[in-house]
Amino acid sequence: MYRRLIAALTLFSLSASPAVTAEPSEALLREAAELRDLALAESDAWRHAASLSTEVGPRLAGSSGDRAAVAWALAYLDGFGFDTVIPQTVTVPAWERGEAELRITAPWPQPLVGVSLGLTIGTPADGIEAPVVRFESLAALEAATSAMVRGHIVFIDEKMERTRDGSGYSAAVAKRSRGPSVASERGAVATVIRSVGTSSERFAYTGTTRFAEGVRPIPAFALAAPDADMLARQVATGRDVLLHLYSTARQLPPARSANIIADIQGATHPEEIVILGAHLDSWDLSTGAQDNATGVAIVLEVARLIAARERAPARTVRVVLYANEEAGLDGSRAYTAAALEAGLRHVIGLEADAGAGRVYALNSGVGEEALPVVEAMRGVLAPLGIAGGDNATRGGADLSTLRDAGMPLLRLEHDMSTYFDVHHTVNDTLDKVDPETLRHAVAAYAAVTWIAANVEEDFGAYPETVPPVDPAASGN
Amino acid sequence: MYRRLIAALTLFSLSASPAVTAEPSEALLREAAELRDLALAESDAWRHAASLSTEVGPRLAGSSGDRAAVAWALAYLDGFGFDTVIPQTVTVPAWERGEAELRITAPWPQPLVGVSLGLTIGTPADGIEAPVVRFESLAALEAATSAMVRGHIVFIDEKMERTRDGSGYSAAVAKRSRGPSVASERGAVATVIRSVGTSSERFAYTGTTRFAEGVRPIPAFALAAPDADMLARQVATGRDVLLHLYSTARQLPPARSANIIADIQGATHPEEIVILGAHLDSWDLSTGAQDNATGVAIVLEVARLIAARERAPARTVRVVLYANEEAGLDGSRAYTAAALEAGLRHVIGLEADAGAGRVYALNSGVGEEALPVVEAMRGVLAPLGIAGGDNATRGGADLSTLRDAGMPLLRLEHDMSTYFDVHHTVNDTLDKVDPETLRHAVAAYAAVTWIAANVEEDFGAYPETVPPVDPAASGN
Repeated sequence: MYRRLIAALTLFSLSASPAVTAEPSEALLREAAELRDLALAESDAWRHAASLSTEVGPRLAGSSGDRAAVAWALAYLDGFGFDTVIPQTVTVPAWERGEAELRITAPWPQPLVGVSLGLTIGTPADGIEAPVVRFESLAALEAATSAMVRGHIVFIDEKMERTRDGSGYSAAVAKRSRGPSVASERGAVATVIRSVGTSSERFAYTGTTRFAEGVRPIPAFALAAPDADMLARQVATGRDVLLHLYSTARQLPPARSANIIADIQGATHPEEIVILGAHLDSWDLSTGAQDNATGVAIVLEVARLIAARERAPARTVRVVLYANEEAGLDGSRAYTAAALEAGLRHVIGLEADAGAGRVYALNSGVGEEALPVVEAMRGVLAPLGIAGGDNATRGGADLSTLRDAGMPLLRLEHDMSTYFDVHHTVNDTLDKVDPETLRHAVAAYAAVTWIAANVEEDFGAYPETVPPVDPAASGN
Repeated sequence: MYRRLIAALTLFSLSASPAVTAEPSEALLREAAELRDLALAESDAWRHAASLSTEVGPRLAGSSGDRAAVAWALAYLDGFGFDTVIPQTVTVPAWERGEAELRITAPWPQPLVGVSLGLTIGTPADGIEAPVVRFESLAALEAATSAMVRGHIVFIDEKMERTRDGSGYSAAVAKRSRGPSVASERGAVATVIRSVGTSSERFAYTGTTRFAEGVRPIPAFALAAPDADMLARQVATGRDVLLHLYSTARQLPPARSANIIADIQGATHPEEIVILGAHLDSWDLSTGAQDNATGVAIVLEVARLIAARERAPARTVRVVLYANEEAGLDGSRAYTAAALEAGLRHVIGLEADAGAGRVYALNSGVGEEALPVVEAMRGVLAPLGIAGGDNATRGGADLSTLRDAGMPLLRLEHDMSTYFDVHHTVNDTLDKVDPETLRHAVAAYAAVTWIAANVEEDFGAYPETVPPVDPAASGN
């Protein structure tokens, strides 16, 4: 089915289009402002997030919840006015969390709240018991000798900084993505990390970890912050601290999932795609309200508003609900591979995967020639209290594969100050989502999308001058 | 051993004491102010709370943690300068939480975060599955007919109000203490309640429930607030909602625990006791930092400061660390029964069991003749920003048995605005305790205790004019 869509779009790309001025017209900016105000008054993205949370719930890639989510999306999108809705089959790894039990056995026995990190192996049936060696940070572990680590359970106690732009996360997540591998290389029998995140509530954080080529996988866990505190207090007494770890986590055979690709076909440039990305999957611990039911809700509501306009956008507005962002970006890779093969033209991408905090800036990663367009977009956003931005965004995880192929990006920055209090925990639930803030976000995304889909200017290519992120630290 | 103590105190009560003025002397108020300032500068109650949390952890009455807590207390009190430390054996009920699993099975399957309520029975081995009937409040359930309830799982969705003085709790807790009994009377097969508490975090709240005479016990659970929201959203669609509940909770044979009774003997009126109460036990879900390691820490630190004074207090200052406040007040009843039998004279009581929030007022429940003394105490507290109070306190749970026997009370009011966010959940951990706020509390308790233990005035009897609380709503 996807091939059919690609064929259709490829066909359209042969048609000629009239060249016009290089900046958004006053009329277009007025339309965008109208759409912004309409969204602010009437849009209801919360309803979509509530439906996905309530009628699907947890939806880890490869699970029955994931299949339910795909079915939900195909049925739910009926009311949104899309011209086409097509599922693209994606093969995803499947993993079962099973049970986990963590406890200190000496010097002072204490049960601990912790979870297995995503995709990691379980323990032997009678668990693992070993002495703990604590490191302040991943860097301290990297500087340690095997003699210190061998036969121990490595405890990486690094804390994460709370920031509005979420930058604390990419720094902190390295201990999760690489820490267990570094520990295993030095002979550790298991790894526990202080949960990535900013909360001191008693929730443990999940997320994938990866072992470097040739490194033996070991069980890896995250402790809730108060439990990391407890372990640290016992270690600080100077006594030998023993941990007992048990987990039945295991890989399952790969499973089928799907990207959902839904188009509002462009009236004059249907071959030019403005892509709105959000991932449909979630971790298994919660209903994934902010990660990422609200992202799904925002892009769907933007599409609904655009489909309801009197005239169709000039360019095609495509919503992609991606499969398995959380545990491997399989949906992102599958979509981009097919798109590149088909020579599809994505003029610009916008991704919603940064929670439901208030939008405060518009960043971009566009060619210099398009900066006046971005500036004009900021003008339309100004009445929402959204101010400024730079041209150095790296965007979100799902659009990173298209970005790496040169696609430029726009990014509406959500205030992430409290996002990492709930992210990847059982506590990512709908009650933390403010419908008004979500409406404000939809207004911003809709205005920006409408301009992107109608401006005659091209957005150029993703700038080569944006500094790369440390690939080890990239986390989803 | 307790008998020996009683004998000793009874002996002292025969000695005569000089009668002096009816109000605290300037010198006594100066001493109290000195103690207040010393405590504010130097006291370290947090260390005691950290020790109990770290070296004992959860300590539900009758559990191994409870025995460890008693042993901890007897060892730890060595450094506090008490003249005598005596354990009073108390028989307590023992209960094992076991496992619990709660899920919606129709129309949209969802796992739910919930816990068994304290002391309740488990389910059959294959669980209970039944349709849900939701009630907005306990009152609505009480107004319901058996026809509506029979064969159903009753869901009491009542919310709790956040208040500084904690008064929202006594209103909300009735759904826990009586709700399951009321549901069973009407033919329900099980009960789930929205957790008592003010948090929307995904923590479920425990606490005991009791079945009225002749009413068949049924399994009773509490759902975390986001899970109560989820259940309510599914019910609101008008579809039949099925719940599956599983629990291995069970009663164990009664066990031995102990009150720890520790005295600083009075220099001139050793037979007159100023009692400082706090319970040593906790629920099993957490280390019970605010409920009640901090209460234990406050009264111990007050005693330490008083024992270190150059002169002993005129009256005996007695710390009682009570057994099993949480699941039945057994320690309180045992202590009071023995005290009444021995004719002990408790001139006034102060209890620390309201968390670690900032102290903002001094309430009392004393004879009218003692109100000038309370007013003088307020004068010493004023520099701490502690202002006002009334003479209508009902005090805490452990001293309620002495109060019912006529003992007057003083009560330092802690700001409880956030206390019920963590109370009786896994999230009651040490990181939420501010050492500075705790030091401020110790300063207040110490100043009040010093005056109470040295003023020549008597505090009279607990006033009969204080309105009784609804016994069904009294919760611990």
